Amino acid sequence: MAEKQDPIRFGIMGCAEIARKISRAILLSPNAALVAVASRSIDKASQFAARNKLPENVKLYGSYGEVLDDPSVDAVYVPLPTALHLQWALAAAQKGKHLLLEKPTALDVKVLEEMLESCRRNGLQFMDGSMWYHHPRTAKMKELLSDSHVFGRLKAIHSSSSYHPPPHFLENDVRVKPELDALGALGDAGWYCIGAILWSMNQKLPTTVTALPDTAKNSAGVILTCSASMLWDDEETVATFFCSFLAHETMSLAVSASNGTLNVDDFIIPYEETAAGFSYTSGAKFTDLHIGWTVKPQHVRVETKLPQEALMIQEFSGLVRGVKYLGARPDTRWAETSRCTQLVMDAVKNSIDDGYKAIKM
Amino acid sequence: MAEKQDPIRFGIMGCAEIARKISRAILLSPNAALVAVASRSIDKASQFAARNKLPENVKLYGSYGEVLDDPSVDAVYVPLPTALHLQWALAAAQKGKHLLLEKPTALDVKVLEEMLESCRRNGLQFMDGSMWYHHPRTAKMKELLSDSHVFGRLKAIHSSSSYHPPPHFLENDVRVKPELDALGALGDAGWYCIGAILWSMNQKLPTTVTALPDTAKNSAGVILTCSASMLWDDEETVATFFCSFLAHETMSLAVSASNGTLNVDDFIIPYEETAAGFSYTSGAKFTDLHIGWTVKPQHVRVETKLPQEALMIQEFSGLVRGVKYLGARPDTRWAETSRCTQLVMDAVKNSIDDGYKAIKM
Repeated sequence: MAEKQDPIRFGIMGCAEIARKISRAILLSPNAALVAVASRSIDKASQFAARNKLPENVKLYGSYGEVLDDPSVDAVYVPLPTALHLQWALAAAQKGKHLLLEKPTALDVKVLEEMLESCRRNGLQFMDGSMWYHHPRTAKMKELLSDSHVFGRLKAIHSSSSYHPPPHFLENDVRVKPELDALGALGDAGWYCIGAILWSMNQKLPTTVTALPDTAKNSAGVILTCSASMLWDDEETVATFFCSFLAHETMSLAVSASNGTLNVDDFIIPYEETAAGFSYTSGAKFTDLHIGWTVKPQHVRVETKLPQEALMIQEFSGLVRGVKYLGARPDTRWAETSRCTQLVMDAVKNSIDDGYKAIKM
Repeated sequence: MAEKQDPIRFGIMGCAEIARKISRAILLSPNAALVAVASRSIDKASQFAARNKLPENVKLYGSYGEVLDDPSVDAVYVPLPTALHLQWALAAAQKGKHLLLEKPTALDVKVLEEMLESCRRNGLQFMDGSMWYHHPRTAKMKELLSDSHVFGRLKAIHSSSSYHPPPHFLENDVRVKPELDALGALGDAGWYCIGAILWSMNQKLPTTVTALPDTAKNSAGVILTCSASMLWDDEETVATFFCSFLAHETMSLAVSASNGTLNVDDFIIPYEETAAGFSYTSGAKFTDLHIGWTVKPQHVRVETKLPQEALMIQEFSGLVRGVKYLGARPDTRWAETSRCTQLVMDAVKNSIDDGYKAIKM
């Protein structure tokens, strides 16, 4: 019998590249254990286990259903292509498995809401796989942004998320297959931009979302590049983002507020694993004659013993533990964060499909 | 009689705050001399001279016309409110004075073209007062951006220029008076964003300019905040900018290209006078497991003996010297740079006035 102090036991459904990072994160996390890995064939699962030097006691399954039937699995991590999320999330919820779901969570918010409702009905914890929220740097940035003396009202936010894979990726990878990940760069890279902007705004939804007319698609019509603007009417705040599979690695967030500015250039994957930085400037004016600044950017470095993905697993496992052993209800904050991101992503997609019209939220 | 080796002799028309910086720059520049300062009253001119400890041989005039009548003046610097540029630029050209004109150059491109035509007809050098083009950092950034191995094709550009003056400024300053500087933050701060974006694109005009619906105006209808997007159809490049009198000091340019990324956060006024930096990343990928980057940003620091405004005066004076003594024709590159910036600024303004419609260029 599992006991209170036992770690939360994970099954991984799918051996995508990202599952390598998460399997390591589960092993690193003090309150989690990796008990099973499932793939579409037992060979693939074995190869995954060998390549990643997984402990021998990790069970290997040749189908996703088996991991859901395993009573020793508390929670599943699902890195499957987005189009398969609904089927397997519903199956997992039916089997009482808590759900850590890779992003983008769904192809549209209706599908996400169906999954969330299924988790809710079955009393299960939900979280999407956005790791950066869990880095202590993120908490430090939020602490500063929330300090009205340091930043004040947010006026403009810009985020960029891009990487430039080789040409064969742009036609053949899962992330650009219309039947698997029809949102392409918007779903994969844009998810982070939208998330970072909403994070800056404390998940307040914009009043209007308008895609910019720079969308590029591959031959199957999947988005390779797009940009959008978001407006909060009552706050008088504007945000823009750029996401792309056609530009060099970027993952930046710049926030301009009435009294301060924040810049981070590696918010999704920090340059290094054990520490991450950002810079901010507050209350700067120009010196006499405007030949310099009275205040220069401060560089903040935040160390972390565990990498952000392990902190994500730890946070998720802590919540699952609360539900499983302590009678707590699932924490809906993470589901709501995913839902807000998905809502804005839908609006961007709708704007693109509708000739770049402004979409009222 | 002035001789070849003599410095170019400047008259300053108007004692705006920015004229303090330029008077110092003229004094610092090895090939320029400050010979006269004119204001609307002799008292104001005297106060300006005293406050800025100008040499005693600088002539003081109580009207702008007098400096134009002074045969010892080769060139004038005009920091007057934008609405007065046409009148005084034409008067200066008629009197054969080379023209260094403060930005924004005009309220619309027709007015600018009238001034440029007048300079052309009279064989006079024109330059606008954007100082940052003349910093050696700018040349270094351009050198890297032009290296296709380092950057490749430009995909996305974002620029922000803002500062946050006290409330009385927002209703009373020259820069927010509809009869003097009707373009407000777009003219004052947005000029730099547009300039930086066009500089990145080697002055290639965008195919479409669309303002974002975040414009804020003061009670007289002058822009306090606005944003816009620009698209180069054939290049598949997008740019966005934010300019404001309502947000903390920013002056950033971020360029994402196919193989590299460039970031500069103080491009208009460097944090310090004798050196300025930027950072860039080229050819970065993620390490195995995506837990870090293979290449981190390189920080480049470029020193300068003369501040950028003195380098601007030096460059301008060198061109004037060529015209005056060496039979050279005025260099039209600077006029063309101003014209491109003004054209895009007009398009942003038209888009705002036309309900944020896309303006074809």
